[in-house]
Amino acid sequence: MNRQNAIGIDADRLWSRHMELARIGAIEETGNCRLSLSDEDAEARDLFAGWCRAAGMTLHSDRAGNMFAVRRGRDSARPIVAAGSHLDTQPHGGRFDGISGVLAALEVVEALNDAGVETEASLAVVNWTNEEGVRFAPGLLGSNWYMGAIDDAALDGIRSSDGARFADEVERIGWRGETRPEDLPLDSFFELHIEQGPILEAAEVQVGVVTSVQGLCWLDVTVTGMDGHAGTTPLDARQDALLAAAAMLVRINEAGRDEGEDARVSVGRFIPATDGPSTIVGALDFVIDIRHPDETTLLRLENRCAELCIDIAQRYSCKIKVTRRLALPPRKFDAECIAAVQSAADDLGYSNQKIASGALHDASNIAVRVPTTMIFVPCRDGISHNVTEYAAPEDLAAGCDVLLHAMLARAGRV
Amino acid sequence: MNRQNAIGIDADRLWSRHMELARIGAIEETGNCRLSLSDEDAEARDLFAGWCRAAGMTLHSDRAGNMFAVRRGRDSARPIVAAGSHLDTQPHGGRFDGISGVLAALEVVEALNDAGVETEASLAVVNWTNEEGVRFAPGLLGSNWYMGAIDDAALDGIRSSDGARFADEVERIGWRGETRPEDLPLDSFFELHIEQGPILEAAEVQVGVVTSVQGLCWLDVTVTGMDGHAGTTPLDARQDALLAAAAMLVRINEAGRDEGEDARVSVGRFIPATDGPSTIVGALDFVIDIRHPDETTLLRLENRCAELCIDIAQRYSCKIKVTRRLALPPRKFDAECIAAVQSAADDLGYSNQKIASGALHDASNIAVRVPTTMIFVPCRDGISHNVTEYAAPEDLAAGCDVLLHAMLARAGRV
Repeated sequence: MNRQNAIGIDADRLWSRHMELARIGAIEETGNCRLSLSDEDAEARDLFAGWCRAAGMTLHSDRAGNMFAVRRGRDSARPIVAAGSHLDTQPHGGRFDGISGVLAALEVVEALNDAGVETEASLAVVNWTNEEGVRFAPGLLGSNWYMGAIDDAALDGIRSSDGARFADEVERIGWRGETRPEDLPLDSFFELHIEQGPILEAAEVQVGVVTSVQGLCWLDVTVTGMDGHAGTTPLDARQDALLAAAAMLVRINEAGRDEGEDARVSVGRFIPATDGPSTIVGALDFVIDIRHPDETTLLRLENRCAELCIDIAQRYSCKIKVTRRLALPPRKFDAECIAAVQSAADDLGYSNQKIASGALHDASNIAVRVPTTMIFVPCRDGISHNVTEYAAPEDLAAGCDVLLHAMLARAGRV
Repeated sequence: MNRQNAIGIDADRLWSRHMELARIGAIEETGNCRLSLSDEDAEARDLFAGWCRAAGMTLHSDRAGNMFAVRRGRDSARPIVAAGSHLDTQPHGGRFDGISGVLAALEVVEALNDAGVETEASLAVVNWTNEEGVRFAPGLLGSNWYMGAIDDAALDGIRSSDGARFADEVERIGWRGETRPEDLPLDSFFELHIEQGPILEAAEVQVGVVTSVQGLCWLDVTVTGMDGHAGTTPLDARQDALLAAAAMLVRINEAGRDEGEDARVSVGRFIPATDGPSTIVGALDFVIDIRHPDETTLLRLENRCAELCIDIAQRYSCKIKVTRRLALPPRKFDAECIAAVQSAADDLGYSNQKIASGALHDASNIAVRVPTTMIFVPCRDGISHNVTEYAAPEDLAAGCDVLLHAMLARAGRV
């Protein structure tokens, strides 16, 4: 992996750290359960902190337990060039989602150390707290607080699913610190992450140059018909809420396809009110998850889905209520940061393509205040949030190499 | 209601007995919860038995707790002309399903008593145990045992949903008797019942002349795709088990409609394996309930539904397993019994039409051994198994009047 400029990342070290971290909270051979601020999260944080200290970095933490390992640059007055992601996982998660972004940032520092290269601006490796939002809600909690969406008191008082107070849990695992966002001003933030989708793999591309995070909208839909006897009620006399909802799912999927390959329309929560093989379902609830990188298209698709559902409900003699529960507009990443990633990928000769992030990430929050972008690495079969999640060592190394040179370009080599 | 032959049922007595029984296990103003062999069932049975004894009848009961109240005919060697239904209800049931058939049969005897009319054959009013199959499975339990589908030991050992043994519960409420089916040989059996569907009401017809119980088939369907991230997985790259199942529901409903107005295709049990708004559903199970009065059509529709599901699964890149869980062929009722009901309805001047029963009834079992048919009474909006279930007093009286004259024709007036 060593290249002409004599700074090269160590792909084996990067991979072996993934495997070492994966021992903490290991489940089902290749899976991980490290819920935020749990004992497992604490153990992973300590291992990570040890590596950072051994690499000569100084550890800082804030009220949310976000960790910042800083490598001093020559000009410590310059804003810091940062990179990272998160070490917590889904309850039935894998070894790469989040972890790769933290370890790649650490590997950038190690590679610079190995090459004896100093930067003008300082660098930071960041671990954001509770990205997954499993043990504490909402997700992206550390970065939400960091960018000011949640205030101190609200943050402290959040209760975990097991009843623990957020502030107490941060304190308990030893990572409640005094650092405020303004104490470590950031020049830029880069988040390397597995794609969590199949696009790069299908295109046989090693690096995704992420331009934006797509917008998201959730519609709560309640369909009300009339329950009845499956044997006695003629098909024409029914108000079958399940059948009406089924027709809606088929049509909103078609509406999504009509908007082209960037559109996403999904129903993952679908709850009939009754459960009897001989009972016509009289009511049910479902949630439509709609995403698109373009705000106008997202809004059009949202309206189209709502219209279709209302129209279909009438045709099936059902009542319907459609409510927007959540709407997050698309977030465009910083043009200069994107250019830095693009240049690094091109210069290093890695196959690459521009891509919008389908999932939300801490980078979406950081981008509100700090020039930000992401680097995607392919993952096998697009699988994520699953114990079988996998990214190849050579792809992780390629992404890390791009991260190194993008950060170096931004921070300035002495 | 008195007619030329001077035998007339007492519509007020019939209605007031419905209301008196409905006080036992009353719920939500107009509903009933009288699970089989519960304290409420025991109280209802005792009230019913008291009415029978007061009407001069002799009570018999069998191992299953089925009750037979016998009014002796002049020729007690002749097989008995019987009628009845069941007194147990759904947990959230109404005041008519089952009850009307028992009380109408009792009213027949009372009307004959009032008119001083003796019959050649004896008459019996029957209450079958555990028709609803809620507290004990399967449903139609008393009549299943009666017609030999369940042997004594199996019957005794059945456990209730609350852990009680069937034999102990029959004993506990005082209705375990020694009568065997051969001790009370039946000439015929008539079951009056609310339609539990909207057909008679829509046709503005007072009496349904029931010709058969339609056949029933249950298909267990398991659809397996791949769960995934709703934001990152392109629509074309998905194996969305919920979407595939939704398409199946739409198509099998169309297949049912293609078979004409007698066909029923329903899905009442529909269980996605995951429940997260942002997670593509990777697997789910559902049960298709298919019914038709004609056996050939039923089989064709079953095969068509299975084919459609298998075809759709492939189109959505999902795997599928379709298993027949249950198949009950259509049951044709006895031509002479049907003719007796038809003649009575016509002679008495009640609007009537032939109809197939959409639901299963004890009469389906009794028909295996004994000439049998049913009389349907309209119910409001076709609603049943619901606290709002309702049949009009005049419709109950009309059905009861038809029952009286059909039984009289069969038993022979002295």
